[in-house]
Amino acid sequence: MRWTQFFIPTVRETPAEATAPSHRLMIRAGLIRQVAAGSYIYLPLGWRALRKVARIIREEMDRAGAIELHMPAMQPVELWEESGRTVSMGATLIRLPDQPWRKGTVLGPTHEEVVTDIVRSFISSYRQLPITLYQIQTKFRDEQRPKSGVLRTREFLMKDAYSFDADKHGLDASYQKMYDAYCRIYRRCGLPYVVVEAESGPIGGDASHEFMVETPAGEDVMMRCGSCGYAANVERGEPHPLAGEEGAALEPPREVHTPELRTIDQVCGFLKRPPASMIKTLVYRTAHDATIVALVRGDHEVNEPKLARAARTARVELADADIIQNLTAAKVGFAGPQGLAGRGARIIADQAVSVMRNAASGANRTDYHVVGLNPGRDFAPDLVADIRNAVPGDRCVRCGSELLFRTCIEVGHVFKLGTKYSDAMKARFLDERGQAHPMIMGCYGIGVNRVMAAAIESHHDEAGIRWPVSIAPFEVLIVALDSEDERVMSVATRLHDELAAAGVDVLLDDRDLRPGPKFKDADLIGVPFRVTVGKKSLADDKVEIKRRDADDVEKVSPASAAARLTDLLRAAHASLMP
Amino acid sequence: MRWTQFFIPTVRETPAEATAPSHRLMIRAGLIRQVAAGSYIYLPLGWRALRKVARIIREEMDRAGAIELHMPAMQPVELWEESGRTVSMGATLIRLPDQPWRKGTVLGPTHEEVVTDIVRSFISSYRQLPITLYQIQTKFRDEQRPKSGVLRTREFLMKDAYSFDADKHGLDASYQKMYDAYCRIYRRCGLPYVVVEAESGPIGGDASHEFMVETPAGEDVMMRCGSCGYAANVERGEPHPLAGEEGAALEPPREVHTPELRTIDQVCGFLKRPPASMIKTLVYRTAHDATIVALVRGDHEVNEPKLARAARTARVELADADIIQNLTAAKVGFAGPQGLAGRGARIIADQAVSVMRNAASGANRTDYHVVGLNPGRDFAPDLVADIRNAVPGDRCVRCGSELLFRTCIEVGHVFKLGTKYSDAMKARFLDERGQAHPMIMGCYGIGVNRVMAAAIESHHDEAGIRWPVSIAPFEVLIVALDSEDERVMSVATRLHDELAAAGVDVLLDDRDLRPGPKFKDADLIGVPFRVTVGKKSLADDKVEIKRRDADDVEKVSPASAAARLTDLLRAAHASLMP
Repeated sequence: MRWTQFFIPTVRETPAEATAPSHRLMIRAGLIRQVAAGSYIYLPLGWRALRKVARIIREEMDRAGAIELHMPAMQPVELWEESGRTVSMGATLIRLPDQPWRKGTVLGPTHEEVVTDIVRSFISSYRQLPITLYQIQTKFRDEQRPKSGVLRTREFLMKDAYSFDADKHGLDASYQKMYDAYCRIYRRCGLPYVVVEAESGPIGGDASHEFMVETPAGEDVMMRCGSCGYAANVERGEPHPLAGEEGAALEPPREVHTPELRTIDQVCGFLKRPPASMIKTLVYRTAHDATIVALVRGDHEVNEPKLARAARTARVELADADIIQNLTAAKVGFAGPQGLAGRGARIIADQAVSVMRNAASGANRTDYHVVGLNPGRDFAPDLVADIRNAVPGDRCVRCGSELLFRTCIEVGHVFKLGTKYSDAMKARFLDERGQAHPMIMGCYGIGVNRVMAAAIESHHDEAGIRWPVSIAPFEVLIVALDSEDERVMSVATRLHDELAAAGVDVLLDDRDLRPGPKFKDADLIGVPFRVTVGKKSLADDKVEIKRRDADDVEKVSPASAAARLTDLLRAAHASLMP
Repeated sequence: MRWTQFFIPTVRETPAEATAPSHRLMIRAGLIRQVAAGSYIYLPLGWRALRKVARIIREEMDRAGAIELHMPAMQPVELWEESGRTVSMGATLIRLPDQPWRKGTVLGPTHEEVVTDIVRSFISSYRQLPITLYQIQTKFRDEQRPKSGVLRTREFLMKDAYSFDADKHGLDASYQKMYDAYCRIYRRCGLPYVVVEAESGPIGGDASHEFMVETPAGEDVMMRCGSCGYAANVERGEPHPLAGEEGAALEPPREVHTPELRTIDQVCGFLKRPPASMIKTLVYRTAHDATIVALVRGDHEVNEPKLARAARTARVELADADIIQNLTAAKVGFAGPQGLAGRGARIIADQAVSVMRNAASGANRTDYHVVGLNPGRDFAPDLVADIRNAVPGDRCVRCGSELLFRTCIEVGHVFKLGTKYSDAMKARFLDERGQAHPMIMGCYGIGVNRVMAAAIESHHDEAGIRWPVSIAPFEVLIVALDSEDERVMSVATRLHDELAAAGVDVLLDDRDLRPGPKFKDADLIGVPFRVTVGKKSLADDKVEIKRRDADDVEKVSPASAAARLTDLLRAAHASLMP
């Protein structure tokens, strides 16, 4: 391909909101262009890279025995009502306006419902299981705050796979195959990934792992033990239980007048105590309208999925002021654990609360707090559990070593769904004895665009992108200096044609420009191997090969350049193979 | 690939509305499944075929120098307001409901606006032209009556290309490249196609051709000269001018009382005249609210695009009753050409009207018609032109031979757009002298799913599909009879592995079924080459090779089968190459 016959609209200025390096570089290098918030054009260079990511994913899915199909974006809302996700997806699920000729259509943010409908229609026997179906297809999600370029958009390319098994062992095996395939995919794409335990969220299910790539541009935070390798999303990860404070004598409980002081900060300022000595008392409603009181330390945050799991309910949400005032007999802001037992609410204390001494909390009396509060003596939780987010300073639950906290991008997510969808949608099979059971499902997603962006987050410098060779839009860039010189152009063209004939993705910069801008663009678009063909070095019968990720230059004869480059490419590709 | 590890949900019963053979066979062979009206799942076999069509299209686009990118479905309605197509697209254009965080979003039924926005943003000089950009991407159109399986759906895969040139000669060259690429694509997909002159419709533009495949399941009608090769969509095609009736003496005009007789049929019945002796008088409004009277023979239909072109207006629509009654001074149903001149309407007569003798028409007087009407003597049209649809019996405009009328599927459409979009959206370039001009555009579409369906329409029999080898989901099907026999399975498996290693798409039917159902399924899914491996023929050291489209069977030794099949495949592929 010749640069002058291709379309690489590089850009000097990037918008102020483009702070993530991948966002900035994808715009500057002419990979993407925004059409509307969260909606992007993939320009030719960007599209080439994205297709290479998709190809690697497809190869590894096929290798793992998954079967490709293609489901439509337009889906009947009835399927979503069957699974109950019209509610849990909320406004993320885009509904098309009804028309006299078409009603109840949504755009698929994911395809559990459609694939379960396929499988329940065609599969009825254990003999037809297991099966894993996948697609690489465009998803629509009405993100309220699209951000960071293609990292969070309303329309994106996703690989989604769904496994169906007859039993839990089968699910474990199907899950492991996908897990292994994901490791190979990220390895081949050159991503330094970490696998973490994850929260399932509205997809649902028993267990899940996320594949994370560390970068300041990420929206997720993972905690990782540098010692034993334990890693989890902070939404999910369990901190090591805290040891109790020792030494301090137990004070008696004492009420303090704290008029209009409602927040932890206000009360701490007034009482001159650190937030870590306070008990935060939060009232929740469960999915079945029971009331739960959650107690966490003043410097901690409740993790609602953990709380819901501890309470064995599908989800929790903060209770209304009415419920709180009825329960505590006080205005909102003065709730505390003391004296709440027996009022119909279940009290769940975080482990860190259970080891506090002489704590402070609301007094269940308007404008009063209580100090000298001691768990066990002054209140007894119904349950002690891990219901908070881990924070820097927490230690590894497995080995007790220090945890590292890092922002990261989620590039993939695998879930053991269990029977959430097969129960709701009656996707059943008959076993050897003719007994019906719900199928056991797993689901597995990769954001294709995110993989591309994460690769740039991991591989760039000030001058531009440094593509992993496996997903680079071109593998070799031939820079013809002195492009009006006949000898230069004939050597460059011959090399281009030799490489192209050998199946190399090669781009020839044949623009009539000075060397400076050509080299600058070469660094910006980040093709892994650059070959410079110029009058001066040709006088010594040489062309220059330079890797984008190294400084040294290798001089080879024009006649041997193609062979040398195919060798280098072979080695570069091999270095990314698992 | 082994059948038992793949997913081919064949189906016995097809829905009553599945009348088109491709629709019926795609359901029966497990290629597609409907999710909602006009929204289809491509099951694994169907998706493999569709991807092969897409690959051929991509190869030919690349060969023609078009550059691939990817534009999103979600687009800002502002772009459509710039081009004015929010109106002309009507309800076909799907608008998403506004949200506080997102407003004015449509789903792209096509991408002229987005691509023009890209090009005007990045291209400003004649030096950057010509350029042709394309994508293979999912389109959304809110069809009121989806039908015939994947032939008319609300969501479909389309290859759309857009060319930008500095002048009309450039456009001609870009158009010809796409035209040639389309011929290669359909040839390679095994489609017996015909290129016809076409009407541009709401896409707009100066000239266009459609690529048609004859089939009773089609929604279009083409007319084609068996003698000189002229072919056109009936929406567009010009019939040979009719000769005047000779011999009959000119009668004097005479009014006839025709109370409450308004339609051609009513009047013909009453007057005992054939419709071909009537003049139909229709009143239209132009895009700029001028009034036009169109005259066609009673047995002909006005072709509104032709009428609009003759009237040099963007579009015409039938006038309201008020306008008709004001113009004719009669109730609706009694309009005629006589005496209309000078009343502010332009009279455009079809050529066939201009040669009528002693015709009948409305008298511009309620409840009266007039007979003995003669053009020239009794009324004088402002313009005589071809403003009707051609009908069986019409002859070729070029050579006068008989025209054939055939229903067909449109599988592709190329348009010379000219400056319709570049004018509206100010997509301009500077020429050598720094003068700004609008770019000259072309656009080029292929319905990928339709190509697949058209291939089935053209290649099937009672038993199932007969895939062209180039787009067959698998090239070879190995049917292992006696699948519990060790020798059979070892020969079948070895052949499978040999073929797969040679890059052949091969499927091994390893199901534990009797030969009958296996052969039935083989015919149904239509893989081009079938190899039967059975105990009986293995006793003679033979396996049997059979083409799906022939009856004879070739016996070869298991050892030579792979080589023989790769030879046969090479020849089959070569036979489809242009």
